Amino acid sequence: MSSIDHIPNVEFLGDGLPFVGRIREIIEVIQLFEDFEPDELEGLARYMRCYRAPLGTEIICEGDAGDFMLLLLDGSVEIVKKDIRGLAQIMATAGPGKTLGEMSLIDGEPRFASCVALDSVAFAVLDREGLSRIITEEPRIGVKLLMELLMLLNQRLRSVSKQLMDCVEARRSRIR
Amino acid sequence: MSSIDHIPNVEFLGDGLPFVGRIREIIEVIQLFEDFEPDELEGLARYMRCYRAPLGTEIICEGDAGDFMLLLLDGSVEIVKKDIRGLAQIMATAGPGKTLGEMSLIDGEPRFASCVALDSVAFAVLDREGLSRIITEEPRIGVKLLMELLMLLNQRLRSVSKQLMDCVEARRSRIR
Repeated sequence: MSSIDHIPNVEFLGDGLPFVGRIREIIEVIQLFEDFEPDELEGLARYMRCYRAPLGTEIICEGDAGDFMLLLLDGSVEIVKKDIRGLAQIMATAGPGKTLGEMSLIDGEPRFASCVALDSVAFAVLDREGLSRIITEEPRIGVKLLMELLMLLNQRLRSVSKQLMDCVEARRSRIR
Repeated sequence: MSSIDHIPNVEFLGDGLPFVGRIREIIEVIQLFEDFEPDELEGLARYMRCYRAPLGTEIICEGDAGDFMLLLLDGSVEIVKKDIRGLAQIMATAGPGKTLGEMSLIDGEPRFASCVALDSVAFAVLDREGLSRIITEEPRIGVKLLMELLMLLNQRLRSVSKQLMDCVEARRSRIR
């Protein structure tokens, strides 16, 4: 059981194996799996759990302790974060192939933002326990997944650092 | 040979094993190694190469292709990045125990900032080839290192994302 199992209206669909076909259909947009071979995808899918949630479900809730990431298979979500006044601001929307929640999978720290279903969504979940089991039981796939997670976080860190530099620069030129 | 071997005035000191004592002295401030046991540190040190560089050496050069990270053992460096006008801005200084250049170790993309020696510095280098070899030859240590790198990048991503949110918020309130 991971924390996803405690969210109302979320229906458990079983492990990821029956969804490997869907994963392959959208593999080109799944950055995290881009270097995975078909047999590795099947190996990985055994450690994932699939769910469906209706429109409006808050699948990930800002501030909650998190222990899983998810891969969107069908439908889309809105990524929402509260500003300093506590007002929810829409940061982005995400569709099939997008992975969400990797940061809390890795460190278990509170969620940075919320994800709310914009329609009926299906998604595959990998939790901390699943990640540990892959590394122990299927080290080749585990190392590959860790490398892909590193690449993904690294790319995000470069992108956010660049945005921060630009923002600081823009503030400086307004102040001058 | 990694790209560090092409920088003038940088003296090669051998592999990391003779420096394990120094690494242990500063281990409490080496975030990357905080969960490493003494035997794992020794295992890792075999895959690292140590160097010394005099005051003023640009150990890492913004924009260059990078293939290594470094661990500062002695001395300190200034982290410098060019602003949009091309003027070098000091972003931070770093001393013994600090690791630098992890992003380019992982993705080989151009360096985000430069590192310039503020005095005579000694440092241990882990390059891409060393990382691949650890994963293949010492998978237990390799997986641990990947997990620690993930934790480190993750923490930085949270911190930079928070700073970006604050900066955007501050700009908004100035504009209003």
